[in-house]
Amino acid sequence: MVSHNWPPQNQGAKKPHVVIIGGGFGGLTVARNLRRAPVNVTLIDKANHHLFQPLLYQVATASLSPGHIAMPLRAIFRGQKNVRVLMNRVGEIRAAEKKIRLVSGDEFAYDYLVIATGARHSYFAHPEWEKNAPGLKSLADALRIRQKILATFEKAEAMLAVLQGNDWVRGGADGLPARTVGREDDAELRKLLTFVVVGGGPTGVEMAGAIAEIAHHTLKKEFRGIDPRTTRIILVEGGEHLLMAFPGSLGENARRVLEKLGVEVRTGAVVKSVMYDGVYIDDEFVSAANVFWAAGNTASTLLKTLGTPLDRAGRAVVNAQLAPENFPEISVIGDAAHCLDSAGGGPLPGVAPVAIQQGQYVAKKILANLRSSKLTDFHYWDKGSMATIGRGRAVAKVGRLHLTGFIAWLMWSLIHVLYLVGFRNRFAVMILWMYSYITNSRAVRLITSDDL
Amino acid sequence: MVSHNWPPQNQGAKKPHVVIIGGGFGGLTVARNLRRAPVNVTLIDKANHHLFQPLLYQVATASLSPGHIAMPLRAIFRGQKNVRVLMNRVGEIRAAEKKIRLVSGDEFAYDYLVIATGARHSYFAHPEWEKNAPGLKSLADALRIRQKILATFEKAEAMLAVLQGNDWVRGGADGLPARTVGREDDAELRKLLTFVVVGGGPTGVEMAGAIAEIAHHTLKKEFRGIDPRTTRIILVEGGEHLLMAFPGSLGENARRVLEKLGVEVRTGAVVKSVMYDGVYIDDEFVSAANVFWAAGNTASTLLKTLGTPLDRAGRAVVNAQLAPENFPEISVIGDAAHCLDSAGGGPLPGVAPVAIQQGQYVAKKILANLRSSKLTDFHYWDKGSMATIGRGRAVAKVGRLHLTGFIAWLMWSLIHVLYLVGFRNRFAVMILWMYSYITNSRAVRLITSDDL
Repeated sequence: MVSHNWPPQNQGAKKPHVVIIGGGFGGLTVARNLRRAPVNVTLIDKANHHLFQPLLYQVATASLSPGHIAMPLRAIFRGQKNVRVLMNRVGEIRAAEKKIRLVSGDEFAYDYLVIATGARHSYFAHPEWEKNAPGLKSLADALRIRQKILATFEKAEAMLAVLQGNDWVRGGADGLPARTVGREDDAELRKLLTFVVVGGGPTGVEMAGAIAEIAHHTLKKEFRGIDPRTTRIILVEGGEHLLMAFPGSLGENARRVLEKLGVEVRTGAVVKSVMYDGVYIDDEFVSAANVFWAAGNTASTLLKTLGTPLDRAGRAVVNAQLAPENFPEISVIGDAAHCLDSAGGGPLPGVAPVAIQQGQYVAKKILANLRSSKLTDFHYWDKGSMATIGRGRAVAKVGRLHLTGFIAWLMWSLIHVLYLVGFRNRFAVMILWMYSYITNSRAVRLITSDDL
Repeated sequence: MVSHNWPPQNQGAKKPHVVIIGGGFGGLTVARNLRRAPVNVTLIDKANHHLFQPLLYQVATASLSPGHIAMPLRAIFRGQKNVRVLMNRVGEIRAAEKKIRLVSGDEFAYDYLVIATGARHSYFAHPEWEKNAPGLKSLADALRIRQKILATFEKAEAMLAVLQGNDWVRGGADGLPARTVGREDDAELRKLLTFVVVGGGPTGVEMAGAIAEIAHHTLKKEFRGIDPRTTRIILVEGGEHLLMAFPGSLGENARRVLEKLGVEVRTGAVVKSVMYDGVYIDDEFVSAANVFWAAGNTASTLLKTLGTPLDRAGRAVVNAQLAPENFPEISVIGDAAHCLDSAGGGPLPGVAPVAIQQGQYVAKKILANLRSSKLTDFHYWDKGSMATIGRGRAVAKVGRLHLTGFIAWLMWSLIHVLYLVGFRNRFAVMILWMYSYITNSRAVRLITSDDL
């Protein structure tokens, strides 16, 4: 049962061991860029797959299947003999000993360590809110949210079916009057058909737009009791406009598009409390069965075990070679890192292009170190940012160029499809998008768990 | 929030109400065939989707996504105005009152009732075995099994990674010896890498073949610690050959193909007990972390509330018009019915073509009843049976014609793809099969839940 594939053959003695924690954009890029390097790589992730996070909201809103946006890490690296993949959780970094410790207690020694653990949602010191306002960071999250959304409409329909049930068998003439929808039923229905999305960044904007499309377009003809078009979708953002990381004009464009889709946009508004049956937006209680969290980012608590300075979001502060204080053999990249933009301004944002470029740099750094050659500092080349707002519309910023509408969406689609790992995924997603766009359907509206 | 789509407009008074319990092959066929009938139809299913069950094992073994083999019932019937879909569970049939009662306590009255509730696995009076030997009847089942299979290989690899962990960083010369795989580790690994499939019918044969392909082919190059080809797969069948519903020669063909794939086939063998860490096959204990149940069928307990005769598998006995004793307005079809083959022999098997033909008949029966016209008895036209055994091989029986091998598999593929609901599904599955067949890959090897 034990194979003889590890360590790879014919390598002489003591090839350096690179341990990469995290198989997202950053970690994946480092591993791939080390394919010709004279090192052995262990890539550890708590999931068994690489996840294309920008499209996660499409799984959550039933446009794509998990299989379209994720690929098993083992499949990605099957041909790269100097990489082994482990599905496991790291509990502690023992930087002084150059070891990591798994939650199981077992340890690995490393010569180089790359920490690319990504980010989690921040509930602003209210972790108890997570239960009633789930976030969207993993496939499990996305499937849970999809389940919630679809089940909500089913419940509302079931409620009404029972109320309307037999009135047309008996008719009015038979003496048994149709039950009318009473005030209590009304309030329950209203709660079921209200969605609140917290956070007006790209994820929140995408989610709100997608839910509005489901409710107001896709499901329009599929229910006999409820009218899905009366669904309320509220998007709450604390800043003065949506997409605070973008210029105000693009944020305003996003607002207009969302409002046209039927979303109520509230900027300069803060969620004060999350209950099981609704939220307090400032001082107003909104009764809602579905609250989704897309606000705030905080880094993995694993970084605390590094013992080096962290910022307020828990990210590890790194220097211009992406290393934390005192540990040149460690690199922290992606959403886990607080890395100042060499062009000035604040730290680099937690977006995919940053993680990818940092990953490429770290691979170069390791190679330079092995050869004892010189290394320049890391510079991020900002090629632009974009966010979709719904079917066929997006906003994009490339340098001083602002784009909106369909052109921006085309660009967004092309770039995202190109970055999808694996030819099969790219092809399948493209076909599915074309199909969905033309038919305005939601391809994967399945409730696959046993209970509602 | 309340729409005015129900009941459908312009229908005059008191259109007859047809209630269909179950949205599988049988229930779906009845509903679709009533599209021009002057009736209102309520279709109730505990899931929100129609499931193409013959391909469920491919979701369980990571070849297909749920989205390929299931379609939301609402989407199927969106254009059929006289059908409404409810996701709900029926608790009781009050046949004397012509009502059904949901588990919530609410009731619906009907003029015609169609019971198409399908079948569950039978654990032969040992329901406690289900926990350690899950079956394969729903998408939730399939995803759970997929999870188990993939997680098993991950766990085994993680075990070995820790054991082998650092030996090539230290090498032999550094004084820290590589840990060897000890006897205890060996037993644990052996248990992890052993799969037992119980039941040698089509589902069991398909599952065993697919797991063998994953282990012995697909994953071959993806692990560095374990050698997946040393996985043991045991298929246990109580009858004298596999595929007892087929002629013995086809059963023997299936055996040979499976053995070539690396499956240990045990016929005339019975599982005496299922434990958390293995099974007793006759008197031999086999240590296995994965036991899957594909044996025995029993009908839904809902049928007991009918109060009419049931057979030993809990199926309702029906007459030549598919109605139970004393209730001509009720029809029971598909796996839920004990219906004698008019051509002689025992009751009709629980396979899709039977359910579909019965569904067509029931729709005709209802129409005939509405028009007070004559109705012939139900006759099943046996167009043949088939089962796959692995990539590119199957057995098929059409009348006296027996087919095996690739030709049979082509036929099987074509027929199954044709019957898949929805053009999109057919197209996608065909493309995916061609891709998988050519590349010998498993397209959807994702672990999407939070824990292993």
